[in-house]
Amino acid sequence: MKEAPKTALKILEIIKGASKVCVVGHIRPDGDCIGSQLALTLALESQGMEVMCWNQDPAPAKLKFMDTKGRFQPPSSGHQFDLVIAVDAASYDRLGEVAAFIQDRQKLINIDHHPSNTRYGDINWIASASASSGEMVYQLIQAAKWPLTKEIANCLFTAISTDTGSFQYPSTSQATFVTAGHLVEKGANLGMICDEVYQSYSLSRVRLLKRVYNQFKLTENNQIAYLWLKKSDYAKTGATRADTEGLIDHIRAIEPVLVACLFEELEPGVTRISLRSKHPQVDVDTIARQFGGGGHKAASGARIEGKPMTVQRRLITVLRKAIRNQL
Amino acid sequence: MKEAPKTALKILEIIKGASKVCVVGHIRPDGDCIGSQLALTLALESQGMEVMCWNQDPAPAKLKFMDTKGRFQPPSSGHQFDLVIAVDAASYDRLGEVAAFIQDRQKLINIDHHPSNTRYGDINWIASASASSGEMVYQLIQAAKWPLTKEIANCLFTAISTDTGSFQYPSTSQATFVTAGHLVEKGANLGMICDEVYQSYSLSRVRLLKRVYNQFKLTENNQIAYLWLKKSDYAKTGATRADTEGLIDHIRAIEPVLVACLFEELEPGVTRISLRSKHPQVDVDTIARQFGGGGHKAASGARIEGKPMTVQRRLITVLRKAIRNQL
Repeated sequence: MKEAPKTALKILEIIKGASKVCVVGHIRPDGDCIGSQLALTLALESQGMEVMCWNQDPAPAKLKFMDTKGRFQPPSSGHQFDLVIAVDAASYDRLGEVAAFIQDRQKLINIDHHPSNTRYGDINWIASASASSGEMVYQLIQAAKWPLTKEIANCLFTAISTDTGSFQYPSTSQATFVTAGHLVEKGANLGMICDEVYQSYSLSRVRLLKRVYNQFKLTENNQIAYLWLKKSDYAKTGATRADTEGLIDHIRAIEPVLVACLFEELEPGVTRISLRSKHPQVDVDTIARQFGGGGHKAASGARIEGKPMTVQRRLITVLRKAIRNQL
Repeated sequence: MKEAPKTALKILEIIKGASKVCVVGHIRPDGDCIGSQLALTLALESQGMEVMCWNQDPAPAKLKFMDTKGRFQPPSSGHQFDLVIAVDAASYDRLGEVAAFIQDRQKLINIDHHPSNTRYGDINWIASASASSGEMVYQLIQAAKWPLTKEIANCLFTAISTDTGSFQYPSTSQATFVTAGHLVEKGANLGMICDEVYQSYSLSRVRLLKRVYNQFKLTENNQIAYLWLKKSDYAKTGATRADTEGLIDHIRAIEPVLVACLFEELEPGVTRISLRSKHPQVDVDTIARQFGGGGHKAASGARIEGKPMTVQRRLITVLRKAIRNQL
């Protein structure tokens, strides 16, 4: 097991002095965010603390299995916290509406593995070599010697599995595997988790996938794949935002593709872009930062204002240049 | 690390006395078979042995990256072997045409993880609790203290990853994760391997997937999903049989679906059916046997003669009855 760094031990000291804690995460939470939030919440509760586990948005249907006790909740007003702990949230903005409800606090701790993290906490533990925030929460729980229950193991396994694309992203390290193995030993139900997460798509998502395959485009000699999801696509398929998770991987997986891009119409004139790179020298974190976003070298995103076709043209131009510079 | 069992140590003793060895595997080899064969071949060569690595069939395109030295070959006549080692082959029949070329041998060793293994070797090491044969070859190499080179690590990681569905099948154990982690530490290029194996679909396969999403049908209240692949689908998409691997999983993964069925036109009047069940009481092995085929409870197949629409009607009727009997 990797040793917890000094910052983690300092965080543990602060946690041990707290009695009312709020664990928060980023908007549109994914498996790593929800799993890390819930695991930390359950661990703190086991130590007798009063813990709220808040997120602006609910868990996507396929990730609800983790929350057996209904702990994952929208924020509510009138609370004072000794400690607010943000996990997996790269910036304070990413907490969304939750931010307004956690003002009355002693300290804010920021635990995250995104290299673009803005260090917005009073104490910041940013481990960009970690493949998931789940691995950091695991390190914290191990260092504290808090009990690693089956339920916590399920949450952390889900966090790690989803944020590594089922142990396929290059960020997956030896420590990732050793941690996952230990979680399985502690009772994480790998078969159940993988069925829930990877083998269960709603009919609306299947209709959306049909649109993906019918509508995606290839350019730059098939090295760039891109896809638009408009509000009308949701209306016509009955799909929700939750159904879009992992959609981009379908165009990323096309053999000659080096960069995949998903354009999502958030509202007229506002587009969210998601980027995936398969080329080690095409760094989509840097590219997303040019548009006010960020993420990792191989996976990033941004929100861009402007006419859809202008956004598309600007981004494709930058991607094309990045690819041509490297090949 | 799991200790190598006594049989493995006995096998090591025999290997150490051999100088000309042939490593064989099963027909239509998959990632576990090819990875295990190549890893063992390279390890034995590092010990100064003369080694042939034979398989009746070539490696599928997406698995060729493992064979950097062109060691994986069809069999040839005129060889005498001190030792033939079969890996990942559940029965002697599964060696296919290779069997005729390995008659002149002192001993046959059988290393496999399939519970159905027929124990056809002079010495048999059958570890049905192992998620892959790759894990067994890893144990052997570790017990022998042979060097675990980067190339061997790549082969073994691919073997383990593919035979666990990327660490998703319930057979995946703590030992599987610990082994995978050690292979990554020894230089297995996880990013490259997963890109080759999981993230690299030919354009022809993508065109075939588009047809899957446009053409699949749901019936029996969305509990049965089925799909036809006609010869014309291959012609129109440029896809080959190799491109159909895993296609059925796309319709199996639809949430309300209990049984998925793929109908493939082999020639006019001859259809291959593939069945997948997600319901523990709907046993598609039994169903396939009614049509002269078989397999496992959750995955089976058969070849059926007759007009396509007749075949479809007969099968769907049986599936419908099986589902209604259980719910």
